[in-house]
Amino acid sequence: MLENIDLTREVQKKDYKAQKDVLDIRLAALQRRALELKIPVIVLFEGWDAAGKGTLINDLILPLDPRGFTVHSTLPPNEEERLRPFLWRFWIKTPPAGRIGIFDRSWYRVLLNDRVDADLPGKAVRRAARDISSFERQLSDGGAVLIKFFLHISKSEQKRRLAKLRADRLTRWRVTKEDLKRHRQYAEYLEATEDMLADTDSDFAPWTVVEAHDRRFASLKIFNTVIARLERRIEETVKPRRTRGRKKAPGIPEKLRVSILDGVDVSVTLPREKYKDRLNALQKRVRELEHEIYMRRIPVVIVYEGWDAAGKGGNIRRLTRNLDPRGYEVVPVAAPNDIEKAHHYLWRFWTEMPKAGHITIFDRSWYGRVMVERIEGFCTEAEWRRAYREINEMEQHMADFGALVFKFWLHIDPAEQLRRFRSREQTPHKEWKITDEDWRNRKKARQYKTAIEEMLFRTSTRYAPWTIVESNCKRHARIKVLDTVIDRIERRLR
Amino acid sequence: MLENIDLTREVQKKDYKAQKDVLDIRLAALQRRALELKIPVIVLFEGWDAAGKGTLINDLILPLDPRGFTVHSTLPPNEEERLRPFLWRFWIKTPPAGRIGIFDRSWYRVLLNDRVDADLPGKAVRRAARDISSFERQLSDGGAVLIKFFLHISKSEQKRRLAKLRADRLTRWRVTKEDLKRHRQYAEYLEATEDMLADTDSDFAPWTVVEAHDRRFASLKIFNTVIARLERRIEETVKPRRTRGRKKAPGIPEKLRVSILDGVDVSVTLPREKYKDRLNALQKRVRELEHEIYMRRIPVVIVYEGWDAAGKGGNIRRLTRNLDPRGYEVVPVAAPNDIEKAHHYLWRFWTEMPKAGHITIFDRSWYGRVMVERIEGFCTEAEWRRAYREINEMEQHMADFGALVFKFWLHIDPAEQLRRFRSREQTPHKEWKITDEDWRNRKKARQYKTAIEEMLFRTSTRYAPWTIVESNCKRHARIKVLDTVIDRIERRLR
Repeated sequence: MLENIDLTREVQKKDYKAQKDVLDIRLAALQRRALELKIPVIVLFEGWDAAGKGTLINDLILPLDPRGFTVHSTLPPNEEERLRPFLWRFWIKTPPAGRIGIFDRSWYRVLLNDRVDADLPGKAVRRAARDISSFERQLSDGGAVLIKFFLHISKSEQKRRLAKLRADRLTRWRVTKEDLKRHRQYAEYLEATEDMLADTDSDFAPWTVVEAHDRRFASLKIFNTVIARLERRIEETVKPRRTRGRKKAPGIPEKLRVSILDGVDVSVTLPREKYKDRLNALQKRVRELEHEIYMRRIPVVIVYEGWDAAGKGGNIRRLTRNLDPRGYEVVPVAAPNDIEKAHHYLWRFWTEMPKAGHITIFDRSWYGRVMVERIEGFCTEAEWRRAYREINEMEQHMADFGALVFKFWLHIDPAEQLRRFRSREQTPHKEWKITDEDWRNRKKARQYKTAIEEMLFRTSTRYAPWTIVESNCKRHARIKVLDTVIDRIERRLR
Repeated sequence: MLENIDLTREVQKKDYKAQKDVLDIRLAALQRRALELKIPVIVLFEGWDAAGKGTLINDLILPLDPRGFTVHSTLPPNEEERLRPFLWRFWIKTPPAGRIGIFDRSWYRVLLNDRVDADLPGKAVRRAARDISSFERQLSDGGAVLIKFFLHISKSEQKRRLAKLRADRLTRWRVTKEDLKRHRQYAEYLEATEDMLADTDSDFAPWTVVEAHDRRFASLKIFNTVIARLERRIEETVKPRRTRGRKKAPGIPEKLRVSILDGVDVSVTLPREKYKDRLNALQKRVRELEHEIYMRRIPVVIVYEGWDAAGKGGNIRRLTRNLDPRGYEVVPVAAPNDIEKAHHYLWRFWTEMPKAGHITIFDRSWYGRVMVERIEGFCTEAEWRRAYREINEMEQHMADFGALVFKFWLHIDPAEQLRRFRSREQTPHKEWKITDEDWRNRKKARQYKTAIEEMLFRTSTRYAPWTIVESNCKRHARIKVLDTVIDRIERRLR
């Protein structure tokens, strides 16, 4: 999912200064409040070489009372530390009540450097991820606030920065052979990072990815995140009762949030003449593959989600046009009925999961939990926050069994949506497709966007990745889905 | 830990009848209440063949309203079910709100039969345990009450029962070849069961081991457990605020709880003349081994816990008498000081953990959390309940790193303790060893016993097992500790 993140965002110097002064004062006040309330705080920074960790950590500590925090730089373990289990050196550095421990690199080294450089076996990687989750849960249960940043820059940006450092006689020493080696291994580190983010993101210790091309943007995002997390915790500590049901501290401003959708180029199109031939060829191929997966007993799960009027129905019809109906099923998902409501929210999806060799296509899905149910308040905040983990667990269980899990987000921009809504209203045989609810949802587009971005980020995993489908051009969208399905099935069959 | 459980317990017919009628009425009332409050309930039974699952399930359902529960018998998966991931057939059978689902065998087949019979690889076993934990946590978070029973009988009892069934022409058919095969594999199943109990015991879905030699005892224990869990949940549902800090529903009566300590034969002794020679030989051997583990870089953790005046100090001195002081350390653990109190309760133990090749002996330990802190109210119930898992995680982290973790419970009976307290009071140079607190603790012996039994059960794991040391005879206790330490180190070195 990292490769989809919009890294172009920046903040103007004037805006930065105006905001930063206020943030400094708020952060300093929060530090004092956390000390009074005896809340231990852990802030850790991971990220690419040359992403600016040092500078950004410095930004963060300047407004703080120096008696209240400690910065720990995490190098490879020394001889003494290698004689202990890997968490030992971090456990003993956990901050006491009311203090802030800032980690420049951290226990995640094992999932990044050790995994890629030392070629740690898969079992050791999984064990380390498990131990880290336990560690963080223990700290959180013990009252600590855990704030985890990953500073993200692209490979080309990293290249540019390393070259700049090397060009200057005064900074050349800072670029080591290892840095250059890791730069060449960007792709391997990217994979390790994606796994790390997926395996160790939790409600008690969530990751924040920081777009670090622009230092001012990154700095504001870090400040806002730390402030939001501290405010939330202090609020919960001071008046745990009274805040129930009330509006919570707002979190970080929307314009600082990770954006995946903003970077999607919805303008891509596919000319009609090319489309026809491609479509025919792909539909033929997908039917062949349907038989193959039946023989090989591979179950396939395909999830369609997307904006209203993004074209889910038409897309599904193109995918299934040529399929053997005995091998697939389309499950339309609406609001749960009374029987479904009496069960766990995932129960109705479990009952519909394909058996080995079959395909189930979900037209909307369990992701309703973290979109419509979140926004309409049909479930509590604790429930939808927990759902990211629960959904990942369910998809992982399917994938472990051998299933291929596809998830498509059909993306159109607001102008295109409006055009389609209007067209539906004016076309008699399409009128049924547009309801008052669609217009109401459209008014909540900003809330939906926040929820969708978070969903795409927290539930895109190596075993069940999201594919974003640019859908302003329906022809392009249909071909992209077919291509994606065919490609991954073919790779599995090989 | 199962092999230490006292299986001799029984209930007289008269007592049984008197209690059972009351329990039937209470259970039926609770079923109605759970239905009103829309609480889904899952009760599952695992256990040895011929342990009496069928009979005991029947006992349980007789007082229930038959419209409100379903019994699911779990056989090996059929052809249809094998085409799905293993949790699928259980997910779709989870009870709706207000209903009771009773499982005669369950999803734990995979950790028992599949592991032993199908020789499932370790990775698949761990993955299944992880998936089961996720499944149970999801159900619990969704509002379900999960009650898990393991019906325990000894191998000889199983043999007797199988023989009896086979001797009767009418019941012979019930004993299959597979039953007899599993009987011969009792030891393997015991190991799988111990792992299962350790890996899937949680605060949201705890295991209850039922001593099933006596049907009446087992039946009462099952009824009391189900009633206690339902009452607790109903109480939490109805008045989640008001019960804070108040006394909770009492749980099951003490006399039905698993007892490990009652089965300990504290009368074993070791004659003085034998003792001297053994002690010398073992102390010499343990010093040799200290050097070996240093060379092999194996860390060793030794925990001493036990009743006041059980002889921890003297025992530790005998263990360390001949050791090279550069290779070991004794850490006496008292109440935490101010700095320690400002940290996570495990922090001070992490700082003391041995490095590779060294031995650390803890004279009392992190187990204070689930004994004195639990009983004196120094931590909340949520905190000590969580501590079982946290402690297991810490010990597993050490064990994964290669550490040998020993835990000794020094056990004396109340009469012996009284004798020692009195003797201390009357011996001038020992007077300092006895304080008012010791007498106060002694008055709370019943509460301590409950806490200790639960601790021994929930934290005895294959990577860090408890050893119960009969300590009425100090000579015997000292030799047993030395023997245990030497034996496990030697096995590791081989």
